[in-house]
Amino acid sequence: MIETPYLLFLGDAPDQLAAKVAVGIKDWRPENAVGQLRMEGCKADLGLTDMDLAQAREAGAKTLVIGVANRGGVISQDWKKVLVMALEEGFDLASGLHNLLRDEPDLVAVAEACGRKLHDVRIPSVKYPIANGVKRKGKRCLAVGTDCSVGKMYTALAMDAEMRARGMKSTFRATGQTGILITGDGVPLDAVIADFMAGSVEWLTPDNDEDHWDLIEGQGSLFHVSYSGVTMALVHGGQPDALILCHEPTREHMRGLPGYQLPTLEAVRDMALSLAKVANPACQVVGVSINTQHMSEADARAYLAGIEAEMGLPATDPFRFGPGKLVDALAAM
Amino acid sequence: MIETPYLLFLGDAPDQLAAKVAVGIKDWRPENAVGQLRMEGCKADLGLTDMDLAQAREAGAKTLVIGVANRGGVISQDWKKVLVMALEEGFDLASGLHNLLRDEPDLVAVAEACGRKLHDVRIPSVKYPIANGVKRKGKRCLAVGTDCSVGKMYTALAMDAEMRARGMKSTFRATGQTGILITGDGVPLDAVIADFMAGSVEWLTPDNDEDHWDLIEGQGSLFHVSYSGVTMALVHGGQPDALILCHEPTREHMRGLPGYQLPTLEAVRDMALSLAKVANPACQVVGVSINTQHMSEADARAYLAGIEAEMGLPATDPFRFGPGKLVDALAAM
Repeated sequence: MIETPYLLFLGDAPDQLAAKVAVGIKDWRPENAVGQLRMEGCKADLGLTDMDLAQAREAGAKTLVIGVANRGGVISQDWKKVLVMALEEGFDLASGLHNLLRDEPDLVAVAEACGRKLHDVRIPSVKYPIANGVKRKGKRCLAVGTDCSVGKMYTALAMDAEMRARGMKSTFRATGQTGILITGDGVPLDAVIADFMAGSVEWLTPDNDEDHWDLIEGQGSLFHVSYSGVTMALVHGGQPDALILCHEPTREHMRGLPGYQLPTLEAVRDMALSLAKVANPACQVVGVSINTQHMSEADARAYLAGIEAEMGLPATDPFRFGPGKLVDALAAM
Repeated sequence: MIETPYLLFLGDAPDQLAAKVAVGIKDWRPENAVGQLRMEGCKADLGLTDMDLAQAREAGAKTLVIGVANRGGVISQDWKKVLVMALEEGFDLASGLHNLLRDEPDLVAVAEACGRKLHDVRIPSVKYPIANGVKRKGKRCLAVGTDCSVGKMYTALAMDAEMRARGMKSTFRATGQTGILITGDGVPLDAVIADFMAGSVEWLTPDNDEDHWDLIEGQGSLFHVSYSGVTMALVHGGQPDALILCHEPTREHMRGLPGYQLPTLEAVRDMALSLAKVANPACQVVGVSINTQHMSEADARAYLAGIEAEMGLPATDPFRFGPGKLVDALAAM
């Protein structure tokens, strides 16, 4: 569990895209983001108040979150100066970088001396159990995709926000680095040991009120040969009551796998439902989330109408047109 | 890669069952087993020549394999005496125990001083790649089960032995601790990090002669919610050309999951084939392997005949009636 709220460190981000994690935190948990800290030459801007470390402490920030991809895969000496000062000022550090904070002896030494924590969210910090398959109370929704990176996290976050706005009980359950930094906890599923994957998902989505929904962040795809085992663990460990199908219609082949065509939404529906019923015979496919960012608005609306007609399921782009239809579907269950 | 041949250490095994790993090595790779080393009170017997360390070295043994489950989950002081002496005599040590050799400082120190290796086969020793899904040359057969522990390893080992006896090109590919100790190498798949599971299976079953078969050891079941992600990685990473369905007909529920019924063989056939075709559209289900150990011979024969009639696939118990029919099916492809 990472202590909130955060000061968002943008470093010397070369552009806004490099600050993707910080943008996610600011978009989805603005209450966790008291300000931004930018170094000279930083080209990203979240529109938050620029603060130095002392100002951010004053404003209540507990953790400095590295909200930016580092250049060249290493934590630079320029960054180090800021990170060391942050520890000395009383901040914990949190990072989703491949270059782990704990692998930097100077950061480890300073953190120890100051009694601060280093959170590397790529690395599991919990000894997860083996899944036991016991039915849990409360409801769970899982986004499953035709491919990786088609909008599964975004769909779950948008639905969670809408549900809370409507006064429904819901929790976004992060299973990836960005999601974990956004919410402050979760399971870095792709870094979990094989035998404990499904157990880690059970651990992440425990018994809850009967009318509470966990919105579980999906990963990979049952049809993506590199990562399908991770997706399978979500389908079985998550025991979803509801599945949302996610798709990006303009993609020409599976991400990172030239020669592998994307499956149809119908194929994902049938495969995911059939597998999900092993853990939860009552599971239903309740809606479709389409990432239409590469389509005109007219094309997007026509595409969504086509999906609704063909599949008999509500379809939306939750970013462009809101997640209302998907939340309606959960509310109706 | 563990150096062969082995001296099989049976320690103070309370019964034959405790020496399961040693029995597997002796049954499947007798050429790797030069003898057995038993301590006072050992109740297991492989029928191999009893040897002390010096005799085994003389006979060519390179590695002392712990072929027995330890009592209480710890490596006892009585065992330690033998293990230390073995290192001093020039043996490497290999173990599939949960209690790792490398976690015992005395063994580590002696191994280092003597220039010997400690092989803990539960822990991956290779940095596996992420799967790339590229089609590989040669042929692959994977056993998929209705449940865990229904005879998938045994089926693959029996088919491999029969194929080599017939002069066919084949290799058993171990994916679990026992299999790795039997053959001297493999991937401890349940201990691999999630993102690299399918990649480790690709690594294990590389390009080969067009008429060469990898017999891949199966793990878990697509219908076992605790381990299905591991099975999925085998189905996609293994790119099987042929699937063998494995089943134990008398089991009352999924192993370790009371309340979970076993799927039908038809359900496993359809699910596994449909997923396998993502990675290899030419994949076929070619036979059925039934573990009939809890059935009379008459019942077993009747059951197998029933499966053949219902499913139109050759069915056998490879332990009881030989794997010939399954090998015939591969040879006919």
